[in-house]
Amino acid sequence: MTMKTSMKSDIEIAQASIMKPIVEIAAKIGLEENDLELYGKYKAKISNEALNKIKTNEDGKIILVTSINPTPAGEGKSTVTVGLGDAFNRLGKKVMIAMREPSLGPIMGIKGGATGGGYSQVLPMEDINLHFTGDIHATTTANNALAALIDNHIQQGNELNIDQRRIVWKRALDLNDRSLRKVVVGLGGPLQGVPREDGFDITVASEVMAVLCLASDLKDLKLRLSRMVVAYNVNKEPVTVGDLGVAGALALLLKDAVKPNLVQTIEHTPALIHGGPFANIAHGCNSVIATTAAQKLADYVITEGGFGADLGAEKFLHIKSRCAGIKPEAVVLVATIRALKMHGGVEKQDLAKENISALTLGTANLQKHIETIKSFGLPVVVAINKFITDTALEVKTLLEWCEKEKVPVALTEVWEKGGEGGKELAQTLLEVIGKIQNDFHPLYELSDSIEQKIRTIVQAVYGGKDVEFLPKAKKQLADFEKFGWSHLPVCMAKSQYSLSDDPSKLGRPIDFTVTIRELKPSIGAGFIVALTGEVMTMPGLPKKPAALNMDVDEHGNALGLF
Amino acid sequence: MTMKTSMKSDIEIAQASIMKPIVEIAAKIGLEENDLELYGKYKAKISNEALNKIKTNEDGKIILVTSINPTPAGEGKSTVTVGLGDAFNRLGKKVMIAMREPSLGPIMGIKGGATGGGYSQVLPMEDINLHFTGDIHATTTANNALAALIDNHIQQGNELNIDQRRIVWKRALDLNDRSLRKVVVGLGGPLQGVPREDGFDITVASEVMAVLCLASDLKDLKLRLSRMVVAYNVNKEPVTVGDLGVAGALALLLKDAVKPNLVQTIEHTPALIHGGPFANIAHGCNSVIATTAAQKLADYVITEGGFGADLGAEKFLHIKSRCAGIKPEAVVLVATIRALKMHGGVEKQDLAKENISALTLGTANLQKHIETIKSFGLPVVVAINKFITDTALEVKTLLEWCEKEKVPVALTEVWEKGGEGGKELAQTLLEVIGKIQNDFHPLYELSDSIEQKIRTIVQAVYGGKDVEFLPKAKKQLADFEKFGWSHLPVCMAKSQYSLSDDPSKLGRPIDFTVTIRELKPSIGAGFIVALTGEVMTMPGLPKKPAALNMDVDEHGNALGLF
Repeated sequence: MTMKTSMKSDIEIAQASIMKPIVEIAAKIGLEENDLELYGKYKAKISNEALNKIKTNEDGKIILVTSINPTPAGEGKSTVTVGLGDAFNRLGKKVMIAMREPSLGPIMGIKGGATGGGYSQVLPMEDINLHFTGDIHATTTANNALAALIDNHIQQGNELNIDQRRIVWKRALDLNDRSLRKVVVGLGGPLQGVPREDGFDITVASEVMAVLCLASDLKDLKLRLSRMVVAYNVNKEPVTVGDLGVAGALALLLKDAVKPNLVQTIEHTPALIHGGPFANIAHGCNSVIATTAAQKLADYVITEGGFGADLGAEKFLHIKSRCAGIKPEAVVLVATIRALKMHGGVEKQDLAKENISALTLGTANLQKHIETIKSFGLPVVVAINKFITDTALEVKTLLEWCEKEKVPVALTEVWEKGGEGGKELAQTLLEVIGKIQNDFHPLYELSDSIEQKIRTIVQAVYGGKDVEFLPKAKKQLADFEKFGWSHLPVCMAKSQYSLSDDPSKLGRPIDFTVTIRELKPSIGAGFIVALTGEVMTMPGLPKKPAALNMDVDEHGNALGLF
Repeated sequence: MTMKTSMKSDIEIAQASIMKPIVEIAAKIGLEENDLELYGKYKAKISNEALNKIKTNEDGKIILVTSINPTPAGEGKSTVTVGLGDAFNRLGKKVMIAMREPSLGPIMGIKGGATGGGYSQVLPMEDINLHFTGDIHATTTANNALAALIDNHIQQGNELNIDQRRIVWKRALDLNDRSLRKVVVGLGGPLQGVPREDGFDITVASEVMAVLCLASDLKDLKLRLSRMVVAYNVNKEPVTVGDLGVAGALALLLKDAVKPNLVQTIEHTPALIHGGPFANIAHGCNSVIATTAAQKLADYVITEGGFGADLGAEKFLHIKSRCAGIKPEAVVLVATIRALKMHGGVEKQDLAKENISALTLGTANLQKHIETIKSFGLPVVVAINKFITDTALEVKTLLEWCEKEKVPVALTEVWEKGGEGGKELAQTLLEVIGKIQNDFHPLYELSDSIEQKIRTIVQAVYGGKDVEFLPKAKKQLADFEKFGWSHLPVCMAKSQYSLSDDPSKLGRPIDFTVTIRELKPSIGAGFIVALTGEVMTMPGLPKKPAALNMDVDEHGNALGLF
């Protein structure tokens, strides 16, 4: 998205690309038409039967793509993920890409799509960026059906003695809508329900989305749904979906959403796009079902964690890997010279000018993430995603810095050149895998207290000094221990822009304290969310939303979508 | 749904049926695989190109299925619609069925599915009754994206001077959720938007759904969306989607939803299931695009209007027919002996007992609907949908009553026997079409005032004495005249259970006055909604919602869905 040098936009490049029928793409990875549920010619879900059939296949190797802390300059992590997959494909490797489904909220708002950019895109990008195969809509529906069933339970006599002041289940929409953050529902008298405070989260921040992405299959999905805590009763004990007796109905609503979606890149590399939790307020990885299916179908799986390594990679390694028994072979850390210069103090409008001292200063952010990945016992390769304004001296400076830091590095030009522009990175990875010792281990144990887990993440991953728990969070720590939830991993909700919880602190801040204002039990997903700073679970729209530029012609072609 | 005599449930019959690949069904009506966008093996959307290609075909004949006022005894209108299509098919006619998509709200709540019953069902019923091809979710998303864009416009400076107390655009969910009827949004301080009163309608009551169902194509859809009134400004002038500049974005969100969905019956008759407005609070008919496409693809099209003839048929004939230039050849009026006995004063638990006097009393309801259809200049055939408890004397009594009234009548047994059970009805219709004079004309002119249109419907269709406009509605009549909206047809929002606006008045009430409490401009849809009595635009859930019985097994099979 930042790599544009030609006059063509992402959507123009995508619409000019000729896709192969998805059955042909499936054939490459050993799937027959019968293993697919087609959604048009170019999208398909993989059937439950096919997922069962491949379970005895050998596991492919996982490569996790992450990045430095994102800046308005753009890093192109999704673009590198796609281009790297295409590069492996060009090198004759049996490869699949596993990525998240984009949320409509940011698409209608401010952000580009999450389907890569330039000549490294997954297709059909319009469909993937709009309703795709309906997974997120099914998630929204299950979430809100549950909310309606909770309020109806209270209205109809409240057999479970739910304390209506202590309902923790929020409604959800897959939109950016700040007006729904804090609402009062049930107004209008006794026939319209019980008035209470409520709020809407964006669907990709909901526990149903996390459950969908961490479930191993439909049976596990139903179990996880039934464990979700929706409220506390008048005795302050948790009330679950299982108590309400509606886990079956919610699982039924998700029976198709749980199947992974097969699409292709511009270069016809197979890609699974499935599940889309945000990485700042949720766990930020595509579904376990998609990643493990890709492992069974290919020798190499390129996947990503959202935002920077402090969020997406940390959560991939502590939550998803642990949950699914996945061990990555190597981690790619994407950086751009422009973004590093921003971390070194340059303003966005000055990025086109050479600035070696700012670049050198900005490498501190990259350095911290390299240290973090290494502390997990994993090999790391830096990918410098080239941009037209990068000067030769800047590139040389950064390459030399990597050499000094003894970290393997490769230049990528995937936006302009597709897989060809990712070959150097792919070759570096193939050298690294097997050569550099892989001693993958988590940074905290599940037996640590929740407080200790948070402290470990803040100190070891963010490089912070300390953690402060506000009174509400302190009380919750005690409650959660009492409820037997202390053994769960932690899902941090934190600004993506900084290693700290203050988005204005770029580079490598030190001596900072992270403030935990509230905890949220996601017992179905199987983690405790720790909310820091001002992180919002429902974004807002900007002054000029992207929706103002969107259109469709009379033939049904999307216009103005990036 | 009421016709069950075997031990098998609707879902068991459906799941035991063997579907043909949808490409085979499409071939029957002259469509190639290339004309379809497949959603799995058994569902497909018809492409825009195919819809264009068939435009020059000759028009088939339309048969509209409607019924007496529904009762808890059940009438089986959808079941008769499906069985009648199958019967035409058995008689060697080229036939298609055109029906609405079911809403998830009632499915999770209390009602059976809307896909027919017994051996007269459209398949795959689980998919059609759950998310189907995502049309309703796209509608919900477009509706709520617009709501977010309105609130964002105000938050970001309110260039259009929208009076935040006069926003008429409501949010929507495809669920039964009484707690969302009246809400306050935008709480939490200046960063969370502007606090205001708001509410959610069920999606199938939304104007976006009406627009989707009345648009002739994507271009017309966009025009209609741009005309939708969302609020009034500080000068009390209407503010439209066009003023906000987001009609293109909303049309983009609906670009696939606007294409009709092809499925099949148990007997492999092709059916288009597309669009799903409720009939009590919206206009109650499947999409114009589906009905007109079916007309181009088949010689006979069997379609329905929701609930009784006072709602679904009146709206089909005054709104949809006028908008699309459709003229039905004949109308089927479905009745059951059980339901007529309820209209004659029998309680549900006593329906199994023979009761000739109650039946005779109940025919008054049937009689009014026959008169109404005839007043539109249309031939009408009564379909007596047989039930196991009907006695020979009851059947004889009703047949003789029809003979006395000089109305053609046929017995149907479509629940048990599929198309075979609808042959008598099909043959009666074939005789009637062409023989009985068809002099179709609306009961009011568009040039009549809104007040006059409402009065005509109340007197000529409901058999009421008068209309009372509450002060708010009176004020709106004047305003709407000023805004130039008087030429639009009227969409009545009224209880389905009675010819009057009081659901307790069964049979054929007389001397009643209908109260109009409020009007709602649906300028994009192209009608004025008149709200009577206590009609709710967001239903609630019952004490034991159907969701409690729903489940899915580990293979993905739906359980407990009817």
